[in-house]
Amino acid sequence: MDSIYFDNASTSFPKSKKVLESISDFIKNTDGSYNRSESTEESDYIFETRRKLAELIGVKYPTHIIFTSNATEALNTIIFGFVNKNANIVSTVTEHNSVIRPLTYLQKIRNITVDWVECDRYGLINVDELIDFIDEKTDLVIVNHGSNVTGQVQPIAEICKRVKQKGDIPILIDMSQTIGHIEIDNNNLEADFIVFTGHKALKALSGIGGFYINPKHTSISPLKVGGTGVLSELLSQPRTLPYYFESGTLNYPRIFSLYCSLSEMSIETLKNKKEYIYTLTDYLINKLTDMHNIDIYSNANVLGIVSFNIKGMIAARVSSLLQKENIKTRSGLLCAPFLHHHIHDNVYGCVRISLSESNTKEEADKLIDILGGICNKVGEYQNIKLPRVYELPIPERKYFNEK
Amino acid sequence: MDSIYFDNASTSFPKSKKVLESISDFIKNTDGSYNRSESTEESDYIFETRRKLAELIGVKYPTHIIFTSNATEALNTIIFGFVNKNANIVSTVTEHNSVIRPLTYLQKIRNITVDWVECDRYGLINVDELIDFIDEKTDLVIVNHGSNVTGQVQPIAEICKRVKQKGDIPILIDMSQTIGHIEIDNNNLEADFIVFTGHKALKALSGIGGFYINPKHTSISPLKVGGTGVLSELLSQPRTLPYYFESGTLNYPRIFSLYCSLSEMSIETLKNKKEYIYTLTDYLINKLTDMHNIDIYSNANVLGIVSFNIKGMIAARVSSLLQKENIKTRSGLLCAPFLHHHIHDNVYGCVRISLSESNTKEEADKLIDILGGICNKVGEYQNIKLPRVYELPIPERKYFNEK
Repeated sequence: MDSIYFDNASTSFPKSKKVLESISDFIKNTDGSYNRSESTEESDYIFETRRKLAELIGVKYPTHIIFTSNATEALNTIIFGFVNKNANIVSTVTEHNSVIRPLTYLQKIRNITVDWVECDRYGLINVDELIDFIDEKTDLVIVNHGSNVTGQVQPIAEICKRVKQKGDIPILIDMSQTIGHIEIDNNNLEADFIVFTGHKALKALSGIGGFYINPKHTSISPLKVGGTGVLSELLSQPRTLPYYFESGTLNYPRIFSLYCSLSEMSIETLKNKKEYIYTLTDYLINKLTDMHNIDIYSNANVLGIVSFNIKGMIAARVSSLLQKENIKTRSGLLCAPFLHHHIHDNVYGCVRISLSESNTKEEADKLIDILGGICNKVGEYQNIKLPRVYELPIPERKYFNEK
Repeated sequence: MDSIYFDNASTSFPKSKKVLESISDFIKNTDGSYNRSESTEESDYIFETRRKLAELIGVKYPTHIIFTSNATEALNTIIFGFVNKNANIVSTVTEHNSVIRPLTYLQKIRNITVDWVECDRYGLINVDELIDFIDEKTDLVIVNHGSNVTGQVQPIAEICKRVKQKGDIPILIDMSQTIGHIEIDNNNLEADFIVFTGHKALKALSGIGGFYINPKHTSISPLKVGGTGVLSELLSQPRTLPYYFESGTLNYPRIFSLYCSLSEMSIETLKNKKEYIYTLTDYLINKLTDMHNIDIYSNANVLGIVSFNIKGMIAARVSSLLQKENIKTRSGLLCAPFLHHHIHDNVYGCVRISLSESNTKEEADKLIDILGGICNKVGEYQNIKLPRVYELPIPERKYFNEK
């Protein structure tokens, strides 16, 4: 058996053959000077990609789909642009460092406060607690739609509905892990900001992400300013969207790869994929549950994520042993440091398997087989030199100190 | 004859066949999960690319070569990170909007002052004036190494030497147009910041740029913070370079394309290319000079840029007529609005031809032939509907008001 790729939550692999062929042709044959200042047929695919994304998430204006180099840049643009001095933010312990680090930084330089909503041992956040945190002083609610550690998907429709019942509170949803896995309709959610990435479940190549921004918030400062290819005579950044947020040469080939992969997606393919991944994930979790010495942190989920630790072993050691068998996984804190406190107390994080629709039951069986072998020999692996131990970080501002 | 590409100063085309083949293979065969947290052979090319760039520009530490999505992001990172409240900046009218707009923005929000050094009618800046502007209050000097409008290359060695003679004043050089065209040795220049882009003369694909930062300035705030794949337990951005400035998923395929194109470069190829482009540019300028009704704004140069206007015609109209003959050029203010005041007074900007080593004398002759035809029929093209007229912008702070 060839190598097995179980790291789709980092970057999906393989991409579709058709997408790869199209992008190869594009790179070879397109001269790359499809400037935004020209309205040529060649540049239509850029608008078309925005249109497809707008349709996919149920928002009205393709011009309000902004491209960035990755989801981190999208989150930084919104957070640094929208969150002013002394702002009050409500977020969750399931967030990625791309949210935690900007907020932690703003606690220092803009004196903001952050309430971090806690979660259960599978990463499901406490919606009642989130709603309790919100009052008339809340400036922004930031929710990670799906955890990259446990695969838990939050009840986002309920969350948005209940937040909006408490007032016109802006909501930012980080859909990095969920877009392309789950149907999204912002006509119902009414989120003000939605962040996405191209290289995970949307199956584009890495190097493209972005966000949707509600027209009423488009006066926020952009993260960077510079050449937009239009209105060069203006010394301030042109206010026209999407250019306002898109300074510098865009990553055209990456946008094209997203265009191609979106062209292959439909409600039908999305549903089939969701069902397939859920079933395989459920199978894997059940098999792992039957084994001894394993703590599992995931419930069956549509994101294809299964996280666990083998008792007495450091997660990275497990990944390394699997790598020797040509099985690619990821382990550690997975850039989401707060969450681990709530699901385990291992400072070395956990092992993450993340499946895609390309993975098979045979591959799952192979993994289970090898993990079984490791579990049976746990004692042999415990005499390794331990890396330096950090404490698991916890949010700086715990609600019970403040409320 | 096939279509002729004369827009290499926007994005070089074609890229080398070998680079295109390598990148196609890379995209198809690499799973994309070469995380920065793993030290695998797969990820070595990332360091190798930094090393090659460090060698190319003559700096010591590959870890101080930072990747960004384009030169604009690099410039924004340095300018927003380094330029504090009430800072005094010296820059030039030849800058791109990726410098002008950040500085104009900081004039508003951080009360900085900017002295804009003027240039002659070919874009050569007045070095004496630049040196005169510098005093003990100067916080940063920003110089565009080569103009994307006229192709003029500034005497950067002299500039750096004379600036440093006036004190330990930090220098930022924007090498977007020159890197890959000209030998650079920062052992002599001693610039504190050097900005580059991959998709112009370095012949990589679009979507990758970056900068060199002198170790003594690495405490500046990064433009964005977030997941770095290392030290996930830290809630503040890890200070380790290059990760400190590189949050979020990197554009691995683009870095690989830069790796491939750098692998094909040598001092020898650079010299040959320089000579070839200079000769062809000189030829083209001489031929254009012989024609009537043409104003030329470029001296012969190694960047391959020839800018001009046909008297009585709007630049965009000329480009459009050339496009009908399958000749791709660019026209307008070219994202460098200040410069035009000094080289002409046409609010519609100019037409830019930009050559690469792939262009031939035959292509230049074809262009000259067609331009001759247009020049002879200028009267016919003057009855077109004019676009809205803006005034050509001039720098907000003219030195004679301040000094």
